Amino acid sequence: MASIFTKIINREIPGHIVAENDNYIAFLDINPLVEGHVLVVPKQETDYIFDLEDDVLSGLHLFAKKVAKAIDKSIKCTRVGVAVIGLEVPHVHVHLVPMNSMDDINFSKGKLNPSQEALENTAKKIKANLK
Amino acid sequence: MASIFTKIINREIPGHIVAENDNYIAFLDINPLVEGHVLVVPKQETDYIFDLEDDVLSGLHLFAKKVAKAIDKSIKCTRVGVAVIGLEVPHVHVHLVPMNSMDDINFSKGKLNPSQEALENTAKKIKANLK
Repeated sequence: MASIFTKIINREIPGHIVAENDNYIAFLDINPLVEGHVLVVPKQETDYIFDLEDDVLSGLHLFAKKVAKAIDKSIKCTRVGVAVIGLEVPHVHVHLVPMNSMDDINFSKGKLNPSQEALENTAKKIKANLK
Repeated sequence: MASIFTKIINREIPGHIVAENDNYIAFLDINPLVEGHVLVVPKQETDYIFDLEDDVLSGLHLFAKKVAKAIDKSIKCTRVGVAVIGLEVPHVHVHLVPMNSMDDINFSKGKLNPSQEALENTAKKIKANLK
């Protein structure tokens, strides 16, 4: 069965997409740790990041770098943190989290639940800095 | 001033090194979240991961992949998680954390303080799987 991320890639379910090319996509986490929390995903559906081929893994992190630079310009933060946990959705995803303190990237704490409108506004800000 | 990681690279202070090549080094975090928590570091001293040149960033993650596969073989875990936080030591470091649950990669919780002997034993196990 297609992962929830493949469904976003295939436009079967909506996503707040901020960047996309032939191999990768980036969209907002709908339950973010903080505003501007983005997931970067290879279109190839692989469960575990260290099972990705070298070129796919490299490409993923270079794509993430471009997105992170746009987040840096869009969201007030000290820097963008990176996390790959992978215990939930079985499709590789790199979390990019704008951080001001260590606790901003604490996945054990409660998540936010922003409105669709708030997510769309955040996506627009990041997209504007990806040009 | 040289970062604490550069001092480990230069053997000015001891480190429990598990892998090294011309451009990257991996050693145990001396205050790990869990046993087998490794830091992967580019020898070039850069503060922010997204300021690394593309080739250095790619190489860092490919080197981390090799180390993560060795951790997977050495430490009982569901998978190896990845985190780049960077609010403390101003020298890029990728955390590789063997995880069994989400809370294993929670940087807001207390850290472990293993003995030098325990660290050395862990380093030996990982090194043995890097061959």
